[in-house]
Amino acid sequence: MTTMRAAVFQGPGKIILQEKPIPAVGPGDALIRITTTTICGTDVHILKGEYPVQPGLTIGHEPVGIIEKLGSNVTGYREGQRVIAGAICPSFHSYACQDGCASQDGQAHGHGYKPMGGWRFGNTIDGTQAEYVLVPDAQANLAPIPDALTDEQVLMCPDIMSTGFAGAEQANIKIGDIVAVFAQGPIGLCATAGARLRGASKIIVVDGIEERLAIARLMGADATVNFRQVDVVDEILRLTDGRGVDASIEALGTQATFEAALRVLKPGGTLSSLGVYSTDLHIPLGPFAAGLGDHRIVTSLCPGGKERMRRLMNVIETARVDLAPLVTHHYKLDDIEAAYDLFAHQRDGVLKVAITP
Amino acid sequence: MTTMRAAVFQGPGKIILQEKPIPAVGPGDALIRITTTTICGTDVHILKGEYPVQPGLTIGHEPVGIIEKLGSNVTGYREGQRVIAGAICPSFHSYACQDGCASQDGQAHGHGYKPMGGWRFGNTIDGTQAEYVLVPDAQANLAPIPDALTDEQVLMCPDIMSTGFAGAEQANIKIGDIVAVFAQGPIGLCATAGARLRGASKIIVVDGIEERLAIARLMGADATVNFRQVDVVDEILRLTDGRGVDASIEALGTQATFEAALRVLKPGGTLSSLGVYSTDLHIPLGPFAAGLGDHRIVTSLCPGGKERMRRLMNVIETARVDLAPLVTHHYKLDDIEAAYDLFAHQRDGVLKVAITP
Amino acid sequence: MTTMRAAVFQGPGKIILQEKPIPAVGPGDALIRITTTTICGTDVHILKGEYPVQPGLTIGHEPVGIIEKLGSNVTGYREGQRVIAGAICPSFHSYACQDGCASQDGQAHGHGYKPMGGWRFGNTIDGTQAEYVLVPDAQANLAPIPDALTDEQVLMCPDIMSTGFAGAEQANIKIGDIVAVFAQGPIGLCATAGARLRGASKIIVVDGIEERLAIARLMGADATVNFRQVDVVDEILRLTDGRGVDASIEALGTQATFEAALRVLKPGGTLSSLGVYSTDLHIPLGPFAAGLGDHRIVTSLCPGGKERMRRLMNVIETARVDLAPLVTHHYKLDDIEAAYDLFAHQRDGVLKVAITP
Amino acid sequence: MTTMRAAVFQGPGKIILQEKPIPAVGPGDALIRITTTTICGTDVHILKGEYPVQPGLTIGHEPVGIIEKLGSNVTGYREGQRVIAGAICPSFHSYACQDGCASQDGQAHGHGYKPMGGWRFGNTIDGTQAEYVLVPDAQANLAPIPDALTDEQVLMCPDIMSTGFAGAEQANIKIGDIVAVFAQGPIGLCATAGARLRGASKIIVVDGIEERLAIARLMGADATVNFRQVDVVDEILRLTDGRGVDASIEALGTQATFEAALRVLKPGGTLSSLGVYSTDLHIPLGPFAAGLGDHRIVTSLCPGGKERMRRLMNVIETARVDLAPLVTHHYKLDDIEAAYDLFAHQRDGVLKVAITP
Repeated sequence: MTTMRAAVFQGPGKIILQEKPIPAVGPGDALIRITTTTICGTDVHILKGEYPVQPGLTIGHEPVGIIEKLGSNVTGYREGQRVIAGAICPSFHSYACQDGCASQDGQAHGHGYKPMGGWRFGNTIDGTQAEYVLVPDAQANLAPIPDALTDEQVLMCPDIMSTGFAGAEQANIKIGDIVAVFAQGPIGLCATAGARLRGASKIIVVDGIEERLAIARLMGADATVNFRQVDVVDEILRLTDGRGVDASIEALGTQATFEAALRVLKPGGTLSSLGVYSTDLHIPLGPFAAGLGDHRIVTSLCPGGKERMRRLMNVIETARVDLAPLVTHHYKLDDIEAAYDLFAHQRDGVLKVAITP
Repeated sequence: MTTMRAAVFQGPGKIILQEKPIPAVGPGDALIRITTTTICGTDVHILKGEYPVQPGLTIGHEPVGIIEKLGSNVTGYREGQRVIAGAICPSFHSYACQDGCASQDGQAHGHGYKPMGGWRFGNTIDGTQAEYVLVPDAQANLAPIPDALTDEQVLMCPDIMSTGFAGAEQANIKIGDIVAVFAQGPIGLCATAGARLRGASKIIVVDGIEERLAIARLMGADATVNFRQVDVVDEILRLTDGRGVDASIEALGTQATFEAALRVLKPGGTLSSLGVYSTDLHIPLGPFAAGLGDHRIVTSLCPGGKERMRRLMNVIETARVDLAPLVTHHYKLDDIEAAYDLFAHQRDGVLKVAITP
Repeated sequence: MTTMRAAVFQGPGKIILQEKPIPAVGPGDALIRITTTTICGTDVHILKGEYPVQPGLTIGHEPVGIIEKLGSNVTGYREGQRVIAGAICPSFHSYACQDGCASQDGQAHGHGYKPMGGWRFGNTIDGTQAEYVLVPDAQANLAPIPDALTDEQVLMCPDIMSTGFAGAEQANIKIGDIVAVFAQGPIGLCATAGARLRGASKIIVVDGIEERLAIARLMGADATVNFRQVDVVDEILRLTDGRGVDASIEALGTQATFEAALRVLKPGGTLSSLGVYSTDLHIPLGPFAAGLGDHRIVTSLCPGGKERMRRLMNVIETARVDLAPLVTHHYKLDDIEAAYDLFAHQRDGVLKVAITP
Repeated sequence: MTTMRAAVFQGPGKIILQEKPIPAVGPGDALIRITTTTICGTDVHILKGEYPVQPGLTIGHEPVGIIEKLGSNVTGYREGQRVIAGAICPSFHSYACQDGCASQDGQAHGHGYKPMGGWRFGNTIDGTQAEYVLVPDAQANLAPIPDALTDEQVLMCPDIMSTGFAGAEQANIKIGDIVAVFAQGPIGLCATAGARLRGASKIIVVDGIEERLAIARLMGADATVNFRQVDVVDEILRLTDGRGVDASIEALGTQATFEAALRVLKPGGTLSSLGVYSTDLHIPLGPFAAGLGDHRIVTSLCPGGKERMRRLMNVIETARVDLAPLVTHHYKLDDIEAAYDLFAHQRDGVLKVAITP
């Protein structure tokens, strides 16, 4: 067998399943047979033509699978082993990686900016919504799955969980902090779980869908705010006795959530931003304290690499967090176009869709 | 003698010298006889009515003087001792102070935001452009001047040097970093000196006045960019081989400097902002990498307290930095209205004016 | 009424209950009527004459009570209000406090070293095992108790919980870390709870008493090691597949625990030490990697101040941690000598004793 | 030509120059023709049999040279290009590297401890005192030399400068700190230069050789202490008004220097240890404050990788530091046995010896 099925971006509005050659394996690569993958909000941006990707590219960046073939230079693994790899799949040998910024691999020494940093699967190389995916820099990126964990249990690790947790980690949370998380989609839910893991003593979450707010409570939220029912800023200031929050996490990528995250932030606090914005942002002078509020605004791109994946899987294996409620739907790879239709329109309470070839 | 001369804000456009009672000394206070003080850019904002201050308040926040009288609870000092105190004069017992954010003293538990954090002298209490100033929380704020140092040598410590250095400290500079500093007024010059002290290996400074760029070289700049002659962003990208800078420091408070500081920043870099802005800010999507650039934007308000002042004076005493070139003019307190006129119009190459009663 | 009962250190082996004057309240002080306090292991060191304290001093440093009288300079509180104060009761205005090391208040500018840093209650001033205690620097140290919490729920905050959590906070724990905690007395149990709160994914605890190991599981331990049954170092290396732990926390103060904590530590890991040692320590060359292991050894002294107390009480109020299992016994202040007898001999499974006047 | 001359360890007391095959180049390797190298104190430990190395291994770990041949997978370099590589030559793809501890590459997942972490050249693989050296993981480790710099100017980067600077970086130096550096051999001198670069306002150095103390002043020392003439601890406490130092850096590897570094350290301070110890260490109880001094003891192993080398060369190129005074002697590779004789006996004021094939 030399070909495989793959979900391929054909141009705006069009992702179709087609046959492609199974890729050849170079000395530093590994070929993974996908057993489970999923669709991400970014894939929908690509589908809609809002995010530039070359037509012909296989989409998807969340691989769970089995090593089919190892490159000649990759050691310490065996064919048949179950593995995952992070969505961002850094080389770890670049200047940026060595400088502590692996997610921006390849960015630090070129002219201009690329909006997605070091993200490769389904962005600059063929992705994971296929029967097979080629993992580059495999020695740095293949992360063995503990036997006790199912595919679905680790399906959030490559992107959603790594990103959401990064939002909490970069928020500089201290024990006893009050943290607000804006938007409770999959990444926001993981940010809530991450804030809980870092020791926040009160977590306030914001969304407009009650089902998501209910799941947020399972992830560790103490208080929920439905923006369709109350003024979010007033309500959070009320919940904090007018003090504001120690840290706020933005998990959607809009002016409204960014601005609210700033308006509820105490002087000296951190705004940790995870969203992919599609417009310029506006910082209102007052909440920014005219630049004198000792604020920090930080953005994070999904950390990758086998060590990150190992840690995240450990968190799941020791039952610190259960992300099972995030997988709401299941589809076969053959039906991926239907899965995109459901996911893109956010029908039927969908959070994440498990795709199996 | 029960009265003193003081420069008092009367309303927009009007700061006049008048007689005022010498303040009474409470148990935690100290009365300082001012021997040297100065005018800050913020004072000019007040003068112009751009920054809200109660009419009747004595202006100024950079005290060098002699202890005239100590409150009953203040120990370890003696009357007649030469001291300075920081512009921000924190209590150090508030929640914000104990939480590591002394400059935002009193801010963390109230409703809403005050644009100047914990700044007190010449903002919420009488200031230093007078014959005497009352220092609250004196135990925490009086910093003895080493005998070897003159008034003028320590005149920058209470605000300009503490603020400028904070810009460098918060920029997260590592040995070998390339740092750009936008605007080379007094604070920007101190940020340049601070970046040098933290180990930046290449410091690029930006201003439109050649005299300031020349002084910047004395403070440690390696390359200068005159924004009247070249496109700043293009030039800095050229000077860094297209790589961008590891950290950029904004020291003016305008959209143009803020935006340029972001445009030259590498993914993973830090934008350290010091300026007092007077308009909302705009973050362009591309340079912000759509929120995915692992950027940090931090703002800082002048650190105060006796330990900070002690450290800054040590830096001057051991000749790490010589800020003498910043004091370009001298005035008597009686002539302070003329000093404001010179300083507000930035005539005659003025950087800082030493005022002596 | 001008006198009160107080547990007073008379000399080695002798702590007795006696009458003492109720202290006068200075402008910066507050007089607290104790409603609950407790005995700490350090008190037993004092009782045994192993730790130098002036005879005549009231012992105890964990106050829960009601404001009886406020000094004239203390604002924002009311008499009758329920409060706690940390065991270390820093001024927050000293050089050490402003330099980020409040627990070493008063230490940074004197000759020589004092083994207990800034610890005051029951060490350099009268303590809390009495009907009343005088709190110095009350503005910085009085922490109001949330109405929903009982005395016993907050009784661990002033010392045990603050110290144990500091051990976890200083261990530099990252999400997914494996952490070992050596000794599961009250402080070790709180270190276990703290490690859990910071996101450790596997927590291994060591003690020789099965009851303590059982409580450790309630506090968040994943695996327990009884040093009376197995070789601790071998067992922890086995539990970590030979990898060692990312961080180890020492919570006893002996060569054996310190050395084991080092022997199981991975290269690049942190040994966070909480114990009060009574002998010189010995660092074996091999586990120290001859000084080339990128190790960190950090020691911590109980953080104090009202902000720290506020945070710890929040953690309890939001049910992140339940320290109720630590209070195993109850005594009246009149029976405190019997309480010391029980506690010093560690009879009857005692962990902490609640003392009520 | 298929053979080359190399300085080979034959057993204790015996390093001789012999012919060896020029190594074959694998896909991830690069073959470097050495143009300059040097002898390190660790090499003398090996020579004396104090540090275990396989007989037959080529010694040396400080390469300056020209790319002779690139492996097929190495991109972005060209043959003929001048490069250096760090003494520690990490893969950057291991778990330890991804976890932020590249110097301990390969250590985090094995049983037991290896005293030299990830050090490879002249330790686990053939070293640099030869005509050619094979660089593994070349993509991560080859660092191009700026044209303006001579071989000798960058000769300290691979080890001495990287290690000495790490000692300063890990000492957590803040602007205005007082820092003591114990021993002013090549690494201690670089630690002094590093402390200066990080903003220490007073640097006190200790050695027994006046020539070294004189060079220390060129590197940035403010005060020198000759341990042959005064009691080091008393003198440093005197120089700091009894306060102690904010950070102390140990750069020799003996109980005496380690202990003195602790004895002069303020509560809350950091002891940054660089030395290779050859005996167990002893921590005296008093200076360790019985474990309650909020001290940090950190050890560091020479950081490597092309980004680190790039930064260090930038520091030299912009004249922040001039390490030329450290190269005191020059030898041909043919005379390396004489160079070892001079260096091992520390004759003739030797600091570092440049070796050229």
